[in-house]
Amino acid sequence: MARNITPKEENYSQWYLDVIKAAELADYAPVRGCMVIRPTGYAIWESIQAKLDAEFKKTGHVNAYFPLLIPDSFLRKEAEHVEGFSPELAVVTHAGGEELEEPFAVRPTSETVIGYMYSKWIQSWRDLPVLMNQWCNVMRWEKRPRLFLRTSEFLWQEGHTAHATSEEAREETLKMLEVYRKTFENELAIPVITGQKTVGERFPGALDTYTCEAMMSDGRALQAGTSHFLGQNFAKAFEIQFQNQAGELEYCWTTSWGVSTRSIGALIMVHSDNDGLIIPPRIAPVKAVILPISKDESVAANEIFPKAKELSAKLDEELGGMFTKVDTDFHMRPADRFFTHLQKGVPLRLELGEKDLQAGTVRFVRRDTGEKVDVKSENVIPTVKKILDEIQDNLYKRAKDFRETHTHDAKTYDELKEIIDKEGGFVRAYFGGTPEDEVKIREDTGATPRCILPGDNKGKCFLTGKDDARLTIFAKAY
Amino acid sequence: MARNITPKEENYSQWYLDVIKAAELADYAPVRGCMVIRPTGYAIWESIQAKLDAEFKKTGHVNAYFPLLIPDSFLRKEAEHVEGFSPELAVVTHAGGEELEEPFAVRPTSETVIGYMYSKWIQSWRDLPVLMNQWCNVMRWEKRPRLFLRTSEFLWQEGHTAHATSEEAREETLKMLEVYRKTFENELAIPVITGQKTVGERFPGALDTYTCEAMMSDGRALQAGTSHFLGQNFAKAFEIQFQNQAGELEYCWTTSWGVSTRSIGALIMVHSDNDGLIIPPRIAPVKAVILPISKDESVAANEIFPKAKELSAKLDEELGGMFTKVDTDFHMRPADRFFTHLQKGVPLRLELGEKDLQAGTVRFVRRDTGEKVDVKSENVIPTVKKILDEIQDNLYKRAKDFRETHTHDAKTYDELKEIIDKEGGFVRAYFGGTPEDEVKIREDTGATPRCILPGDNKGKCFLTGKDDARLTIFAKAY
Repeated sequence: MARNITPKEENYSQWYLDVIKAAELADYAPVRGCMVIRPTGYAIWESIQAKLDAEFKKTGHVNAYFPLLIPDSFLRKEAEHVEGFSPELAVVTHAGGEELEEPFAVRPTSETVIGYMYSKWIQSWRDLPVLMNQWCNVMRWEKRPRLFLRTSEFLWQEGHTAHATSEEAREETLKMLEVYRKTFENELAIPVITGQKTVGERFPGALDTYTCEAMMSDGRALQAGTSHFLGQNFAKAFEIQFQNQAGELEYCWTTSWGVSTRSIGALIMVHSDNDGLIIPPRIAPVKAVILPISKDESVAANEIFPKAKELSAKLDEELGGMFTKVDTDFHMRPADRFFTHLQKGVPLRLELGEKDLQAGTVRFVRRDTGEKVDVKSENVIPTVKKILDEIQDNLYKRAKDFRETHTHDAKTYDELKEIIDKEGGFVRAYFGGTPEDEVKIREDTGATPRCILPGDNKGKCFLTGKDDARLTIFAKAY
Repeated sequence: MARNITPKEENYSQWYLDVIKAAELADYAPVRGCMVIRPTGYAIWESIQAKLDAEFKKTGHVNAYFPLLIPDSFLRKEAEHVEGFSPELAVVTHAGGEELEEPFAVRPTSETVIGYMYSKWIQSWRDLPVLMNQWCNVMRWEKRPRLFLRTSEFLWQEGHTAHATSEEAREETLKMLEVYRKTFENELAIPVITGQKTVGERFPGALDTYTCEAMMSDGRALQAGTSHFLGQNFAKAFEIQFQNQAGELEYCWTTSWGVSTRSIGALIMVHSDNDGLIIPPRIAPVKAVILPISKDESVAANEIFPKAKELSAKLDEELGGMFTKVDTDFHMRPADRFFTHLQKGVPLRLELGEKDLQAGTVRFVRRDTGEKVDVKSENVIPTVKKILDEIQDNLYKRAKDFRETHTHDAKTYDELKEIIDKEGGFVRAYFGGTPEDEVKIREDTGATPRCILPGDNKGKCFLTGKDDARLTIFAKAY
């Protein structure tokens, strides 16, 4: 067990921060609640960005960039929206040496300013659908910051689309939810439950919010991505109108959807262990590290290093999308070098020592299981590929098994309370209550409704006793 | 000539804005001085980003992300720096519903906050060099905004590096200048002159600023990228120290370098004509557009479109990095469809009409020259490749010839004044004056020293008569 990492069983919050520190993923900034994303952390974000961006483009979306500052009056145009975001705004009151006539909010999200621009660009049904996305920073002032999970500034993508019909906008909302689900499951190896949010948990201004909920390794839920059906709320507030084929003016139907650097927090909490970070191979910026090792520093540097370089180049070339790194910290003890890469979560370590060279083998060490195996030189390339796939599958399976083991059903409020209190994890229960009921449940138990499961599965509400309640996941959440 | 574009000879500023509007590159935002980068403009930025980012990574740099907000006290730590940027700051005074104890500036550049973090991360010579870059938005309040050229918010990359020696930091400064030069010349087809800035034009806080200066098609200069040798100024202000191999504490030597969305302004002004935008093929998001054409809308849509799709897929697959688009605006007149792509600057148009199909040919139309040629179907792929290369070369050559024709030498101040007044363009003259002299020249002529040419070329200063003056480019600038 790593001495610089508190075991998660002892103090989960401290474990989380220790893993981040040991892997050099992020640091607190000298600005309250803000973070610095360090190169190792940012490379993970670039990797997530690349996967999502490719999917956005495949589904016909284009990127654009809208201004950071939002006039105060814009936020006020949609009543629920301003109510939801006002307490979290950072406000620019002075610029260019003068006090501004109207203060600007640093964008907490961009429905308003994008809505304003759409109203100028959209005239006719021929201009629809408009399918845009932006990659940017946003700011929501945070009193209890936590690296990646809750920071006053964070990075994200926000998609904003406008459609001629309600059906098409709903279809888009669900399409992007599915893009998120696939990316989380197939690339980040994070199993997610997709479904609708309850009324109390909706995005301010949305008619419906859909979510991807993931279970962290302490049993809590984390909302990893959301997709909102905004109806005509923002179209009416910003007059986003189009002339239909019959020549009449209609309001557009809009959607928005986002995934942020929070997803890195999920990645850390789902996969990592008491030795530090574990990154799934498909997201890992460095998929394998090669270590030339010898008791004699100069043998390692001069004789083994060139062979390691060669192997690295071959792997980079022959395995598409592979990126390997050769460790050159010859001055460090091998155990310390192993430790560095272990803590940084590199999926696969390839050791190249003098004995290995003599035997014509390379020692493989898996990050997820610690398993060691000596592989003949001629089999190294296919074996790297095979083992990386196995690690990816194993991480997903491990996380899914954990979620299933930690999901329970409750028929009554007492049952729900007891599970949340004693077992934690997810509780499945039929719920048909109001936003006020949601507040009461949170106050009683600390848990909130995370998502309504899709499908026609209906039953008696555990709280109100009403029929036709929807099967809903409850959990304590990040 | 396009009716929606003012000829550049008539009104260059209006021409510039008309080109942007016709190509849908950007729009003014509803926030004073800010812009919205529309998808066509943003795709160009993504293309520039991809080229630069690959070069940064090849030269050993890693990306990171630092906070948007900078404490007021940080900016005050470097005297010249705060003096240079204070008049342009946007200031956050309220957040989370409260007035802040210390106001934050929205970053105008990040030397200060990055310096602060470096002082925490760097301990020993083994930690050096630190070679980081960030892609982000910055804000410098602008009283006379102009799309892409001067906007209160813009996008850029800022590289920040720390080194053990002055020599290494200087080498880095020049290495990144060269990365910029190559990217501008080889990818954006913009010839640039690289050299040092005069004292009066340096970055606030730098010991030396190097620049890439380009000539726009009205003869004015535009600073397209800068690279700064910061000496130990910021290291001293933020205590960025390291223990050297002898165990002594030393201050680091730092650099910073940046290219912004201004480069899109340069791209527009260097290449475009009175018909609208022209994008060099290597930067163009869409390199060729294929138009299925027929007088009969349904023939175009049902019979020719599938063949166009097929050609598009083949081009995308066989020519690496190629991206083609098939035009499906069958309801528009062919002339209007041509016009759209002309104005958007797509390098190559491939027309697929009924006659072409019968003759087994495709009609090629070059954006840069308007030249038309019918190419046999079996030769289409290699010809696309060849013609795109020719367009790239032609645009570079055209811009370079223009610059050479519009560059003159001056031996006296009167000569310089007369050239600036009557010919415009670049003036080469030996200059050895002070920052006060630079102010006087600007007041007299509107021109500023753009860059000191590299090399040992020295002579008598045209203004002061002093010997050993350096050969310097003067011009009116954006």
